[in-house]
Amino acid sequence: MLEYWSGSAADPRVDPSADPPPGGPLADPPAASHADPHPDPHPDPRVDLHVEVDTVDGRRVGLERALRAAIRDGRLVPGAPLPSTRGLAGRLGFARGTVTAAYDQLVAEGYLTARPGAVTRVADVPRPAPTTPASASPAAATVPRFDLRPGLPDGSAFPAAAWLRSTRRVLSGAPAAIHGVGDPQGRIELRTALADHLGRTRGVLTTPDRIVITSGFYQSVGLLAAVLGDAGVHAVGMEDPGHDVYRDVVRRAGRTVVPLPVDTDGARFERLADRGVGAVVVTPAHQYPTGVPLLPRRRHELCGWARETGGLIVEDDYDGEFRYDRQPVGALQGMAPEHVAYCGSVSKTLGPGLRLAWLALPRRLVEPVVTAKLRADFHTHTLGQLVLADLIVRHDYDRHVRAARLSYRRRREHLVGRFAAERALGAYGFQGVPAGLHVLVTLPADGPTEPDLLATCAERGIALRGTRELWHGTPRRQGLLVGFAAPAEHAWPATLDALAAVLREG
Amino acid sequence: MLEYWSGSAADPRVDPSADPPPGGPLADPPAASHADPHPDPHPDPRVDLHVEVDTVDGRRVGLERALRAAIRDGRLVPGAPLPSTRGLAGRLGFARGTVTAAYDQLVAEGYLTARPGAVTRVADVPRPAPTTPASASPAAATVPRFDLRPGLPDGSAFPAAAWLRSTRRVLSGAPAAIHGVGDPQGRIELRTALADHLGRTRGVLTTPDRIVITSGFYQSVGLLAAVLGDAGVHAVGMEDPGHDVYRDVVRRAGRTVVPLPVDTDGARFERLADRGVGAVVVTPAHQYPTGVPLLPRRRHELCGWARETGGLIVEDDYDGEFRYDRQPVGALQGMAPEHVAYCGSVSKTLGPGLRLAWLALPRRLVEPVVTAKLRADFHTHTLGQLVLADLIVRHDYDRHVRAARLSYRRRREHLVGRFAAERALGAYGFQGVPAGLHVLVTLPADGPTEPDLLATCAERGIALRGTRELWHGTPRRQGLLVGFAAPAEHAWPATLDALAAVLREG
Repeated sequence: MLEYWSGSAADPRVDPSADPPPGGPLADPPAASHADPHPDPHPDPRVDLHVEVDTVDGRRVGLERALRAAIRDGRLVPGAPLPSTRGLAGRLGFARGTVTAAYDQLVAEGYLTARPGAVTRVADVPRPAPTTPASASPAAATVPRFDLRPGLPDGSAFPAAAWLRSTRRVLSGAPAAIHGVGDPQGRIELRTALADHLGRTRGVLTTPDRIVITSGFYQSVGLLAAVLGDAGVHAVGMEDPGHDVYRDVVRRAGRTVVPLPVDTDGARFERLADRGVGAVVVTPAHQYPTGVPLLPRRRHELCGWARETGGLIVEDDYDGEFRYDRQPVGALQGMAPEHVAYCGSVSKTLGPGLRLAWLALPRRLVEPVVTAKLRADFHTHTLGQLVLADLIVRHDYDRHVRAARLSYRRRREHLVGRFAAERALGAYGFQGVPAGLHVLVTLPADGPTEPDLLATCAERGIALRGTRELWHGTPRRQGLLVGFAAPAEHAWPATLDALAAVLREG
Repeated sequence: MLEYWSGSAADPRVDPSADPPPGGPLADPPAASHADPHPDPHPDPRVDLHVEVDTVDGRRVGLERALRAAIRDGRLVPGAPLPSTRGLAGRLGFARGTVTAAYDQLVAEGYLTARPGAVTRVADVPRPAPTTPASASPAAATVPRFDLRPGLPDGSAFPAAAWLRSTRRVLSGAPAAIHGVGDPQGRIELRTALADHLGRTRGVLTTPDRIVITSGFYQSVGLLAAVLGDAGVHAVGMEDPGHDVYRDVVRRAGRTVVPLPVDTDGARFERLADRGVGAVVVTPAHQYPTGVPLLPRRRHELCGWARETGGLIVEDDYDGEFRYDRQPVGALQGMAPEHVAYCGSVSKTLGPGLRLAWLALPRRLVEPVVTAKLRADFHTHTLGQLVLADLIVRHDYDRHVRAARLSYRRRREHLVGRFAAERALGAYGFQGVPAGLHVLVTLPADGPTEPDLLATCAERGIALRGTRELWHGTPRRQGLLVGFAAPAEHAWPATLDALAAVLREG
């Protein structure tokens, strides 16, 4: 129901000729047609004013809103006198007390000023700048037509039914305290489930009290970088090429990044000794982006360095669940649990949107990392932690990972087979072992360049990454990172066709 | 199914007299009874060794796990030779290829070393330090017997059915992309729902593109403090007394805190001008902890300061939904949208465990805050955002807040009535307007001290807060912050009795 008050601000009179504004009961007040873009500070008190009162939430509330809107959009300017409560009540057919209460409310909020015995006036409230149309935020999520972004799982395969079942179980079975302030280290249910799960599937040797739950690997790296800084570590070794985003996290935390070149055996560590490096971030299962595993000799070399120097190894096990030609190589952490901070997440299994990740830490790091987590955001959302714990202990999580592994394995074979079968694609190569959610496609020396290919892909709505930004300095090789997991199963053939067409045409 | 391999590491022989270890098929390997706490680096190769192979996940996997466990717990020490693959296969009744594959796996992981033609040996893997029993983390959530913690809503009233319904709707209706990388500013669905909801319920004047979703007010303050630092703001005005936790956030971000004394009209701002303060954090609806609202004159004074100096007002609307004697006073933000960063969250309505909060920002702050959010943790968990948006647009959120307001209002009346009715409690006073989730109980001059009362409460399992830590320097008054919202409805009478007993006894 709408009621209208029309007349001058100083002497309101009902104007029976005024048309009701367009729109239904919940339409916005017709501000634009009445607002004066350059309000005179001393307006003619008899200027016609039109205030719409939506009484759906009650008359007083509606009148307050209407007056606030009129003040904000300039129909009622600072200093303007308001009609008497008696006069306005009469015009609107409201009880006088309703109008008085609305004025009192707006005085309390600061929109109006009142002195005993004097007329109520609009306070000195500045008009906000006109709002411009909503613009997309810098990194707004958009869905590409052909999604080959590396590192993203197939969101259409999200185990929604299992997630919902577990949510119901958690909400019906958990105590009310789960809605209170949580443990900055993470829920004990999830830490217990993970200690078992990580031991079983990744050979991680840990206990629930050495696990910390975080809101993503991104946050994990940030917490570790902060703690390392407090511990006096200035330089961090990071793979070259490696993930540029995490390099930026380490740099922003004030640490210096020392590049560790990657060859076919994984990262090389000979530069650690003479550089005063206190920590190393590695991807031992499937180096990002080259796809090579860290070979045993290098694993021993790195663990030896950590033991001799007290340095910390940060193991980014970002896609360790996905190996297609053999059993996954166990985590490096199992060999040196007191020297390795193991980092995992659900981002490659369930999806990054959940913001759920974990650290299995050397004992000495637990307390400082928990403190850093507490200072960052108190704790990770409780309900999500409990649902994930339920998924793990009921093996729904395992089942989902196994199904995803089969699907991605087929897609990778499909992709590699296509390149092998099609002569025009023969000049492109694949690097790395059959694992993970992406392949690194190497480019022929006399073929198209990485920027050319990326530009053509962008034109055609194909989302993927190049490798140029992954090098610490000058890119030493060009390539494409092709994520084969992101598309829905039904979209995969067309997505592969689209990529093949770009590469074929060069 | 369990299979046992028993014998010396160098020359394995089945020992038929060996007892199977205790425990079912999934029992831990009997490490403790076999591990030598001080392993000899050159052990007698004929030392009896007992390896348990759990074949539930396959023979090879089981053997790998058994060997890893034996290496880790010291039954197989560095340098120890392993039995030949043929010999071990014969003892276990496995195919030789199974044992070879297991050895290969452990070589790849670094547990074993192999050279062509030579015996396979245990690599130089250090034993992890013995794990001590899990200890509670520093701030682990514990449920007090009588929960009077200020600022906590009643978790037993969490709208679980509505949350579950909305979760189902979101999971069944949303595109697969919701599981991908999200928008650091927050989901547009939630920002749109909040722009409307905050305008309607709190008089906030904003648009979806000026809202940023965060993981709690704690994170909101941290992001703002970082952005203010980048903008060259060195000093931040904060209420005295005020929330110590948020003061610490601002200080850790490197800002100086300038105390703003609080009187019966709210915070006082005369010290802003001469201190070079660039931002002010206030609780205008219900000052924390004193409970007084910021009166209109002070609101105008503060907005005037912001407009003149370009300073930022951070409005912590922590419990603005809860006013019991009148319609809530609208947010300060509505008066000066380009000078106020409005902060809200679900922590006082649904609970802090969800880690969902929002900022309604002046336009100039949107981009820097979104960048800071991106750098902190990429974005807030997507599913939670979408469920909350659904709750809001379907008015389940409003319904829940209304029901909570009724319940808390009754409790507050009950509490105040009890103090008024009981002569022995007459010396205690209440400060602040009827609002929020706590009352500030003032202490009689000749009565028990705050520390005495807190000690007695702690002894009896009553959780509440004192006010001493809320003062910036020397506490100028003593008091108790009694949260009346946290207990379940059925527990409230006994909780109030418990508090009254402590105060009565003094």
